Amino acid sequence: MIDLMLIGIGTGNPEHVTAEAARLLASADLVLIPEKGEDKSDLAQVRRQICGSILTDSTRVVSFDLPVRDEATPDYLARVGDWHYAIAQIWAREIRSNLDGSGKVAFLVWGDPSLYDSTLRIAERVASVMPLRVKVVPGITSLQALTAAHAIPVNDLGKPFTVTTGRQLRDHGWPDGVDTIAVMLDGQCSFQGLAPDGVHIWWSGYAGMHNEINLSGPLEDTAPRILAARAAARAQHGWIMDIYLMRRQAQVGEIND
Amino acid sequence: MIDLMLIGIGTGNPEHVTAEAARLLASADLVLIPEKGEDKSDLAQVRRQICGSILTDSTRVVSFDLPVRDEATPDYLARVGDWHYAIAQIWAREIRSNLDGSGKVAFLVWGDPSLYDSTLRIAERVASVMPLRVKVVPGITSLQALTAAHAIPVNDLGKPFTVTTGRQLRDHGWPDGVDTIAVMLDGQCSFQGLAPDGVHIWWSGYAGMHNEINLSGPLEDTAPRILAARAAARAQHGWIMDIYLMRRQAQVGEIND
Repeated sequence: MIDLMLIGIGTGNPEHVTAEAARLLASADLVLIPEKGEDKSDLAQVRRQICGSILTDSTRVVSFDLPVRDEATPDYLARVGDWHYAIAQIWAREIRSNLDGSGKVAFLVWGDPSLYDSTLRIAERVASVMPLRVKVVPGITSLQALTAAHAIPVNDLGKPFTVTTGRQLRDHGWPDGVDTIAVMLDGQCSFQGLAPDGVHIWWSGYAGMHNEINLSGPLEDTAPRILAARAAARAQHGWIMDIYLMRRQAQVGEIND
Repeated sequence: MIDLMLIGIGTGNPEHVTAEAARLLASADLVLIPEKGEDKSDLAQVRRQICGSILTDSTRVVSFDLPVRDEATPDYLARVGDWHYAIAQIWAREIRSNLDGSGKVAFLVWGDPSLYDSTLRIAERVASVMPLRVKVVPGITSLQALTAAHAIPVNDLGKPFTVTTGRQLRDHGWPDGVDTIAVMLDGQCSFQGLAPDGVHIWWSGYAGMHNEINLSGPLEDTAPRILAARAAARAQHGWIMDIYLMRRQAQVGEIND
């Protein structure tokens, strides 16, 4: 039996690693690291720092080249599914060639394995070709890094909130029934498509990292500042990852007791 | 200037404490601990364990009696607002009497200070009566403990999800526009009010703690098992805190590229 540990390590602050994550990473026989296809060198640096401070010689670290998605596959879900399948093939191959049918494999996950991350779906595919016990180790998410940086609650008192993607926001507009939304995976600053009246935005680039950038204010005034800061930071670092929370004046019914 | 650190410590697993949380807690001059009104002795035990393993004699630990909410105030928001004000008065009094106008104060927060937690709102009130710099330290949330325990993603691929409360679910039913919802603060098992067809539920009691209970399956079959397990656990421990995620068969439009 193989134990596969999907270990959330936070979003780029090495101090966001939990005691559990550190202990289980140290206990691994094998750590799988995707090397290519992730040219975010600052993130790779953080991962090396975490591994360097925790791992000893008893753990084998194996890098593999991440396959690229086949953009010729028109359907989004099919394209992502194929890509997960290709990655699962590599994981299975590396586990077979590095372990003798049993042992502990660790995979480091940015943020938390539950949140807009593919590793659980890949692990499910690996489990279909070998006996595998999957353990998830939670980590600090970019949403938490965002709200911590701005020192804000994610929800209004007793109210719901929706977590969504840039694509969803572009296709469907502000979600029904909530006055607070968090937006992830948005390479296109999709807040630009919203009517800004009464909307406040809290934005972080590189949330959790040493070069974190935080901007907040009424959406109307803040949107152009975010666009400018984002473009400048992307030019400087060669990549950017960002996240934001927006809250509008309450439109959803007040709480009634 | 007073530095007030709101430190997320996770939901009852001492190993969920991050390196940052441990370092900042250790650096505190004063730790404020609410003692009464929180008769969840297992949680108090975890907090003592965390403090005991991290704090030295250089930190002063002060307990205070948590005021009770005035149930005679009919309006929910007003009642909670009054309660936050009363707590803020106590924080301000303890900070004034234990520190000489400057120093680091730590307050331990279950889970993460951003998520259905009142400490940021209380800190804002304290900041209105003394110079205060607030720092938020993220911690593992019960939602992450839930998804880790069940080894599930919180979102479907590229899809949104809503985090809400038991009261919202009872008053408004399944939220519009999402097929996945996470429900917190639900003392009444409000999933009972939903049509169960096509709904899957993942439930955890004491998520993250040593006595964690996990149940999952189709809502129709699983709801009575949850009710029974919840009642038994509550009788045994004297309290229960639970959280759940529900996903229904996709009704919201598929992703189109």
